[in-house]
Parts: sequence; structure tokens; C-alpha cells
Amino acid sequence: MGLVCDATPQWAQLDAHFQSWGARFDLVQAFATDAQRLEKLSQQAPYVFADLSKNWLQESTEQQLSALARACGVHTVRDAMLAGAAVNTTEERAVMHWLLRTPPDAGLLQTHPVVQAWEAPVQQALQQVHSTLDAMLALAEQVRSDERITDVVNIGIGGSHLGPEVVVQALEDWVTPGKNFHFVSNVDGHELGHVLRKVKPQSTLFLIASKSFTTAETMLNAHSARTWFLANGGTETDIQRHFVALTTNTAAAAQFGVTRTLGFWDWVGGRFSLWSAIGLPIAIAIGAEQFKNLLHGAHAMDAHFFSAPDAQNLPLRLGMLDVWNRNFCGFGSRCIAPYSHGLRRLTAYLQQLEMESNGKRVTRDGKPLQVATAPVVWGEPGTNGQHAFFQMLHQGPDVIPVEFIALRDGGKYLGAHHQSLVINAIAQAQALMVGRSGEGIERDCPGNRPSTFLLLQALDPASLGALIALYEHRVFVAGAVWGINSFDQWGVELGKKLAQSLRERQQSNDWAGVDPSTRALMQRLAESPLNGN
Amino acid sequence: MGLVCDATPQWAQLDAHFQSWGARFDLVQAFATDAQRLEKLSQQAPYVFADLSKNWLQESTEQQLSALARACGVHTVRDAMLAGAAVNTTEERAVMHWLLRTPPDAGLLQTHPVVQAWEAPVQQALQQVHSTLDAMLALAEQVRSDERITDVVNIGIGGSHLGPEVVVQALEDWVTPGKNFHFVSNVDGHELGHVLRKVKPQSTLFLIASKSFTTAETMLNAHSARTWFLANGGTETDIQRHFVALTTNTAAAAQFGVTRTLGFWDWVGGRFSLWSAIGLPIAIAIGAEQFKNLLHGAHAMDAHFFSAPDAQNLPLRLGMLDVWNRNFCGFGSRCIAPYSHGLRRLTAYLQQLEMESNGKRVTRDGKPLQVATAPVVWGEPGTNGQHAFFQMLHQGPDVIPVEFIALRDGGKYLGAHHQSLVINAIAQAQALMVGRSGEGIERDCPGNRPSTFLLLQALDPASLGALIALYEHRVFVAGAVWGINSFDQWGVELGKKLAQSLRERQQSNDWAGVDPSTRALMQRLAESPLNGN
Repeated sequence: MGLVCDATPQWAQLDAHFQSWGARFDLVQAFATDAQRLEKLSQQAPYVFADLSKNWLQESTEQQLSALARACGVHTVRDAMLAGAAVNTTEERAVMHWLLRTPPDAGLLQTHPVVQAWEAPVQQALQQVHSTLDAMLALAEQVRSDERITDVVNIGIGGSHLGPEVVVQALEDWVTPGKNFHFVSNVDGHELGHVLRKVKPQSTLFLIASKSFTTAETMLNAHSARTWFLANGGTETDIQRHFVALTTNTAAAAQFGVTRTLGFWDWVGGRFSLWSAIGLPIAIAIGAEQFKNLLHGAHAMDAHFFSAPDAQNLPLRLGMLDVWNRNFCGFGSRCIAPYSHGLRRLTAYLQQLEMESNGKRVTRDGKPLQVATAPVVWGEPGTNGQHAFFQMLHQGPDVIPVEFIALRDGGKYLGAHHQSLVINAIAQAQALMVGRSGEGIERDCPGNRPSTFLLLQALDPASLGALIALYEHRVFVAGAVWGINSFDQWGVELGKKLAQSLRERQQSNDWAGVDPSTRALMQRLAESPLNGN
Repeated sequence: MGLVCDATPQWAQLDAHFQSWGARFDLVQAFATDAQRLEKLSQQAPYVFADLSKNWLQESTEQQLSALARACGVHTVRDAMLAGAAVNTTEERAVMHWLLRTPPDAGLLQTHPVVQAWEAPVQQALQQVHSTLDAMLALAEQVRSDERITDVVNIGIGGSHLGPEVVVQALEDWVTPGKNFHFVSNVDGHELGHVLRKVKPQSTLFLIASKSFTTAETMLNAHSARTWFLANGGTETDIQRHFVALTTNTAAAAQFGVTRTLGFWDWVGGRFSLWSAIGLPIAIAIGAEQFKNLLHGAHAMDAHFFSAPDAQNLPLRLGMLDVWNRNFCGFGSRCIAPYSHGLRRLTAYLQQLEMESNGKRVTRDGKPLQVATAPVVWGEPGTNGQHAFFQMLHQGPDVIPVEFIALRDGGKYLGAHHQSLVINAIAQAQALMVGRSGEGIERDCPGNRPSTFLLLQALDPASLGALIALYEHRVFVAGAVWGINSFDQWGVELGKKLAQSLRERQQSNDWAGVDPSTRALMQRLAESPLNGN
């Protein structure tokens, strides 16, 4: 782990490999000359079939990428993570979100040598995980059977919002009838205001999700919800029945008036927390049994990632493909195209997962990186995207790799729709590859544009758990190659600090040292008519 | 217009300007050395205050960009568009979405020399616009006053979906109580299915929005809605009262059973159509008077764009800033950060507007371009983004310009929330610029990261109309510099054609000439359990 990634001989070899071969690579030709290409570059992993064969790589590329991973210590850090070591170095914390979905007996990881050597703290953590999980699922079942509660409002932001929202939305067909789920994250009062317009205090349960119970947006929304609750017939005593805090700061929660709290641990990062108490809205929505299936799918992917050999390890292969695309092919972004209405917000979730984890420029050892890290991750669900920005994917000057996500089993709605949906996804991947010419230059598509195709078994809890865990580990792999600590987020501190400073300056009217642009914008804000209470 | 943009002397000058100056540009320093920087690089336009001063440019840069615009014929094409000429060259069509918001007497454009010289076809088109607009607003008011209708379901995709959805969502505070609006676009049956679960035939109005009445997704959804309608107690006769078609193909609509249709014209591109009959759901939601305010705001921006001198012409300045950022600074993407819950889907709208219009690689004259065109446009609303991908904006290796959009007047909800919201936006722009160092390398933010700040008067119909028109014209400006036809979208054809071909091959089981990857994915789809009807 001593060398920065681009100082390894493997990096230089891959660079040469791209220069001599990848830059002139032709996808159509590659299929024509290698009848085994699909077999070599696709695989089944738990709940997910992945086809990497429409990317600018071949078997030997993957072998070199695997060697690079090893040279950069990816496997070492992976196993350290599994051992419960403090791989979140800047915060000196273990990284064990995968433990949140590990069965009490370690399940599929039982025979893993690292697991067999687990020390007491990990064993204890696993016990704590299950006692909190049991408490959370009991609470969820209690809320589910309480017919007086018709609305659940989750107040949280970032990791305390995106995971639960995306999962509840994706599993809409599994959500218990008779309960509505609302997610409030933005400090913009319109989001909370519009939810409160629809609900009543006596039939609403508020979940306040903030690890520290100090997140500015969440606390402002929580206090406004509390004010509304008391102004609309709720009493201080009722608050105990209608508010639950998902936090580690039970003292602050008690001061707020909430006694029912569920906690988690400093080894659960916000963007990896949907499997913890932060997942309570999910558990209320789909119930204990299905929540366990969600955990099981993720655990199956964990076991795969921690055990499968490189050539058949899907998170590793995808993570290394990401490195290949970003650093050798030079692609600056990746377009996510989930062909599923249920997965319409998956991209927002992946933006946090990937860009907050790996949008960094120094290594764990404090060395500045000279290479690109996380790409811009963006997209909209198919087929909608086809009628919007796909024009650019086909005919723009830049090559943008696309990641198609489709479902093999369409679920309960309308077979003809599902057929059309998936055929469109397949046809787009084909079109990006084959292109067209000779029908007028304005119709020319250059083709040879890479894509990855993930075919999920179905949009059910287990498959979704596996898919999300796949992304978690894949992001870990790329971050480990770059030598980044994928588990901190120091870059978000400065903006918060400056916002606080601007608030204070607004009070004191002291603008010394503040640039004229910032000052002028603050001035215009001060002059604005601020309606409302 | 003979020279491709990068062959003009102005392009070479700007390149030299960037090399000699821009590449070493320091924002903090620029404010320190020029006390007038903010005044020079900000301006008020109709309903929008824009601050460009935190970008890597100075007054002389803008002067050179203005010269480039002139050399590339931006003003010429703009005036040709206003004259009603066929500036959509590949489809030989005029481009007159701005006419949809022009008052009968030409309003603020009355004294414009090009308008004074309008020929009969444009005059006639303006008359048609207003007779259709009157009919549409009358229909909207009729639906608004019909208490039996509680739900309006818009079925359309791309331009027939994004504009209406974004505007209705943004203007939620203006939406008439007692009516719910649903937007179905995806061919995935889950979207339609979940809407149909909530509504009843006798209280629902379906709007089928498809210019050609042949769009595959829209027609499949429309037929499924029709089947559901008849299966749940509606009759063939009821269809006439519960379905409206927004289309130019009245024959196909009649065959579907719909007699109430509203049309538009071939000079309205899909992604510019929310001002036309496609805007019917907006008009039903906010009423005739507010729809006219929406048009008025856009018209005010039109008049500004067609008349203001370059140095005070906001769409021109922003369009040229986009060219500067993309082609000279080399930024591959632009992050859109609307600090407004109401504008949470604006980015999806802008993705279509910008990437479908300018995601192209040949000029109007059929010459291949050697320069980059549209950037990747992406983002999530603030403050949510701060808790997700802003980490990368502050600490990632790549510079990504950010566009902040905030509201001066926060509307009716909770002043403290609005203060916090806008201060966060201002603080983020400040943080991107000033950066930080000296508090540990993992906390280092390089700073000097550019951003643009748009301060909208309020989230009301007129301001929103102005904002959207601002973006339309800005995209036009950049496209005109690149010499692109921003009004066609040939790149989307191939995928549709291949989807149709795959459907036929599935029937005939003939896979000759199809690559193994595509074939294998089709095979897996065929084997999948297709539930539902």
C-alpha cells in the first residue's frame, strides 16, 4: 500500500495497454473476432446478472486490472474492513455497515477465515446489531398494526433520507396498504409544509433521523413539525407516542421530548445506514419479514464480495471497470439508466454513495492524487431518458458510458409494458454500440459507445438489497485503488461553517473580509419580503 | 456563418486569452484587484438577478465572447428565428415557441424592427396561437369549475411531460385545491398502475399528449388507461368526456375515441412546447390568469433577449459563459443546484433542453465539429445536494462549475426555513471560491471553483416563465456558436428502430447478424416470468 496507484507498474502497463489497444478498440469487431466474448465478460452474481461485454475491455484487460487492484491493496483493505479494523482512517473508525446484514451466526460468511478469526469487539458489535434490529422490527410491527397511524413522516437528510426513500419507493408493491410514507429532507419549508397540509397529528408518526441530533436542516424541520403538532391539538405527552428519534444522541432527543429512540454506531456511515435503525421507515412500510429479505440479499452480495475469486467477483470487476473507464479511457461521467419506475430515484442515491465516498483528491496517507477519482454520476429512468438526453449519448462528441439496469421479472403490472420497457433498454445498448451511417450526416451515430447491463432478478427486497450492496462494494473497490478513504466527508464542513458565519455577520452587520459578490447576495436576501411565520 | 466556430480568429484569441490568463486565474484575487468586478459581472434581467462574478472571466473575456458570438452569426440566427425563418434546417421548419407567449399586438416586441417587418405567415401564426390559446384556456376553466373532476392524469413523455410536470410542481402553491395532478410518462406499467390505483373513472380526466399520436410509450399507456376506464364502469361515450388529446393528428385521436383535441404546429419543438396546448395541465392547475402570467414572464425574457445589447443581454451572456466554460476552461459538466423544493425537478427539464438541443457533433452545414458541445447537466436541489455529492464539488480533483438558483421571496412557508435555505446557497458559492487550507490535508479545499448565482424574484408564474425562457435562449446561443441545429434530434431515431427490430426478431426468432450480448439479454427476457395481463 506504499505506492500511490499511478506509481505502480500495473498502472503503467494498463496505460500502455490502452494506448496500444484500447484507444482503437472496436466493440462490433471484438464480438466478431471472439466468439467467447460474452461468456468471458458476463456473470451471474447473487440476484444480479451482469453483462460487461459492451465495454472497451477484454479478458486480458480484466486480468491487468485485477493485478492493479492487488498492487493497490484492495484485497488487503477489504479484508481489514471485514476484520473490523479502523479503515476509516481520518476518523479512526471501523467500517462495518455489512455487519448490519450479517446473521447472528455469520451466515454465508461463517467459514470465511477472517470471520473465523473475529475478535471480541466484532462479535459484540454483531450482538448489538441484532438486539437493535430486534427492537426496531418490533417497533415497526407495532406501528404496522396500529390502525390509528395512517401517515409516517421521516425527517432526515443525506444518508438519513436517500436510502429509506429510494427503498420504500422501489418496493411500493410491498408497502402495507393503509399507511402513507412521506420523506422530508430539504430545509425549504415548502417540503414540510406540503406534507403537513395532508396529515393530522393524531394519525401521524414522525421519525426524526439524525445520528448527532444536531443536523441543521433536520432539527429545524423537526422543531417546525413539533410546533405544528402542538398547535393542531397534540399535547406534550402525545409527542412521546407520535415522535421517534433515530439517533445516537439520546440526551438531545430527550430534551426535544422524545423518549423512544433507536441508535446505531460510529462504524455506520450515513450513506451506508439504511440497514440500521435509519431503515425504520422501510421496516414499517414492508414489515419485519421483508426487511430481513432486504438484509439477506445484501448479505448474499457481501459474502460474494468477500469470498469470490477476482475473475468472478462482480463488485471487484465493476469497481475496476470504473477505474478503467475513468483513468485510462478518460470518461468523465457515467450515466445511470434504471429501466424501472420504482428505481427512478436510485441515481440520487448513487450520487451520494459514489461522489461523497470517492470525490476526493488526497490518499489515506495524505498524499495528493494526480489522477481523476469519482466520475459525475447522473441519469434519469428509462424510457424517459430516451426522450430527453439520450440524443447526446448517441450523437454528442463525448463518449459517456451508460449503465442499464433492468428487471427480469416485471412484477405485477402489465406484461406488454414490461416487454417494451426491457426491449428498449436492450435496443439502446445495441444502438450505442452499432451506431449508424450512410443515411445523411445528421443521422450519423458514431457507435462504439460502451455500456454495462445489469439484469436484476426482480424488484423485490432481496434483489434490491443485493443491488445496493453491489454498488457499495464497487465504490469501495475504486476508492481503494485510488488509495482514498471512502468513508469520511471533510469537504462538506466548510460550507456549513461559512453558512453559520454568514448568519452571524447578518446579525452583527459586519462584512469585513467578505467578497462583494457574497455580500451583495446577502444584502438582496435581507431586503427580500420574508412572508410566513 | 461560413466558418466553423473554432476556425474563427475570435476563437483563437479566446484560446490565447485562456492560456495566458484564465488558466492561472484566481477568483479571490480578482475581487481584490477590481472593486467594480461585481457590478461588471452581474445584472438584473426580467424577474432574475444574475451574478456571474464568481466565474473564471473578466470584462475583457465577455467582450471577446461577444465578438465570437457575432463572428459565429448568433445574432443573425437569432433575428432569423424572430423573423420566422426555417432555422431548424434539417427539418425545414421555423422555430417559434417564443411566439406562443407573444401577445396579439406583439407586446414588448412591438417596436422591434424584425417584428415590424413580419410577413403574413408569422402574423397568421400569431393569430392561430391566440385562437388555440383561447380555446385551451376556456377548456381549462371549464375543467376547473367541474367539481366532478378531481384528478387529471397527463399521459405524455419527453417534451409532452417534463415541462408540464416541472411547472405544476413548482407552482404547487398556485394549484387549485380539490384537484390532483398525475403525470405518467414511463412505459413501465408501474407508473400508470400506481396512478390508476388511486383514481376513479367518473372523476378523472385523461390528457393524452403526443404531437403525432404515435409515440410508443404514450400510446401504450393511453390504451391501457382506456382499457382500465372501460373495465371500471366507463362507457365508450364517457370517453369523449374523460379524454382529451393534445396532438396535431386529430384523425388518430378520433380513431382512439377522442373528439376533444387541441393542436399545435410543426414550428413548436417538443422540448419547447409547455407554452402550447401541451401546457393544458398547467392551465387547469393554475387557471387562465396565472397561465397568462407564465406566458408574460417568458415574453418579457424574449423581448430582453431579442433587444438588449450584448453587454446587458443575460441569455447571451450565460450562453457565452457556457461556451467559455466548456470549450476554453474545459469543464465537462455543469451542476444545477436549485435551492427550492418546488424546483426539485428543474434539472430533469434542463437536461432535455440542453443535452437534446446541443448534444450533437455536426454543424447545420453538415461539417463535423472538432470541439466539445453540450456539457453533462446534472444536480439535485439544495440543501439536499450538500448532504450528498457536494463533497466532490469541494474536494474532487475536477473543477465542476455550479449554478445556484435561489428565490428572493420565499413564499408562504416559514421565514426561518427560507433564510437558512438561501444562506446555505450563498455560503456554498463562497466556500467553493475561497476554499480552505492549513487545518489538515484531509480538510483542504482548493477553492477557486466557479459558480453562477441566479436569484429569482419569487416562485410565481411570471418569474418561472422568465427563468425557463432564459434557459431556452441561453441554450440557443451556445448552439448557435457551435453552428448546431439545436432544434432537431436525429440521434433518438436509431434506438427506436432497433427496439422495433428486436420485437420482430423475437417473433420470428431470427437473430442473424445480432451480437451475442444483445441476443443473450433478449433470451433472458424471453425466459422471464411475465406476470400481469
